[in-house]
Amino acid sequence: MTTRNTSRFWEWGRKIICVGRNYADHAKELKNAVPTEPVLFLKAPSAYVREGSPILFPRYSSNLHHEVELGVVIGKGGTAIPQSRAMEHVAGYALCLDMTARDIQDECKSKGLPWTLAKAFNTSCPVSEFIPVERIPDPGDVRLWLKVNDQLRQSGCTSQMIFSVPYLISYISDFISLEEGDLILTGTPKGVSAVQEHDELQAGIEGVITMSFRVERKDH
Amino acid sequence: MTTRNTSRFWEWGRKIICVGRNYADHAKELKNAVPTEPVLFLKAPSAYVREGSPILFPRYSSNLHHEVELGVVIGKGGTAIPQSRAMEHVAGYALCLDMTARDIQDECKSKGLPWTLAKAFNTSCPVSEFIPVERIPDPGDVRLWLKVNDQLRQSGCTSQMIFSVPYLISYISDFISLEEGDLILTGTPKGVSAVQEHDELQAGIEGVITMSFRVERKDH
Ligand SMILES: [Mg+2]
Ligand SMILES: [Mg+2]
Ligand SMILES: [Mg+2]
Repeated sequence: MTTRNTSRFWEWGRKIICVGRNYADHAKELKNAVPTEPVLFLKAPSAYVREGSPILFPRYSSNLHHEVELGVVIGKGGTAIPQSRAMEHVAGYALCLDMTARDIQDECKSKGLPWTLAKAFNTSCPVSEFIPVERIPDPGDVRLWLKVNDQLRQSGCTSQMIFSVPYLISYISDFISLEEGDLILTGTPKGVSAVQEHDELQAGIEGVITMSFRVERKDH
Repeated sequence: MTTRNTSRFWEWGRKIICVGRNYADHAKELKNAVPTEPVLFLKAPSAYVREGSPILFPRYSSNLHHEVELGVVIGKGGTAIPQSRAMEHVAGYALCLDMTARDIQDECKSKGLPWTLAKAFNTSCPVSEFIPVERIPDPGDVRLWLKVNDQLRQSGCTSQMIFSVPYLISYISDFISLEEGDLILTGTPKGVSAVQEHDELQAGIEGVITMSFRVERKDH
């Protein structure tokens, strides 16, 4: 095997583990209880999309939401990683969107079905360039924002997270081993809302990175 | 990138897509409605376990179930693959277990939560050797069985599937692109039941392959 380039984790990384309801104000806006342990779900790596390619509105949904999130890129894999050593396993970060078919998610929730259709469809995981770990000295103090057509929709700080990055790495790795190239999406602050075909989404980590994506309808 | 060996798909394959309730008699035994479209969920590739290593009972569960399933290994990737061409994308098969923390799954279902803890934990996806496509001329006529401590628990035929292998490939790839090395678990026939620490699980595809796994408790 040739050496893999962590800064292009989306090309070969094997999992995307997402945390739901990790900001109390977002849990409340969707009328969910504030969780006492992390809510985890998976996206498939086929969900990655990079700047220059559009976010595709799934045909089966009529309510596609943006969720801006801090992504944590794993460098060194591990199982049952203690919180105190968790940061040694982080290679860097990425700015991510957890695109969500909210109508389908609501249906899945009410029927007790898995969230796959709502969360794991192609282009449901837009990601920025890789951000080396040195560029974010404290993942618990990162300001995230998202605009739709130049209008601010989401603005929050990872200091508002219920479960911190080290806690999440420890919690997840206790039963799902982490591997190099894995990505953890750490949840979204309040302000999620619907996007429409032709919308321009711009998102950023204050002082670190910005990215933009256009929404298109899948037309074939 | 060096050439990857499809017969060792578990080492590098990027997703495991599972189909729930694909046999009417199993849907009924769990008191679920027979679905009108496939129920899909994901396991993470870190869930793979190979013969010689044990299935680990997750600490948070007290009701771990076996589900014996035919796995389909993707050779050629694709998006929106028509049913008529689906079999061109199949490199082969694997005999698989979809190990399920049934108590946790029931809890997730009743709370409208994703099934990750119930389905995606380490060792939740035992897999056999790779079975080249030529060895199974018709994936719609495969007899699967599973024994616990030499006692037959599951016995079924893929002819009882609600959604066929070509249908599943077409349905899934319409919104989740398939890649080389991906695995599709096609659902389990009736007879799922609880396993205990030290149980020996033996499973087979009649006339094609057998495999066995021991259940252990995670003790650290
Ligand atoms: Mg989210
Ligand atoms: Mg996955
Ligand atoms: Mg199953």
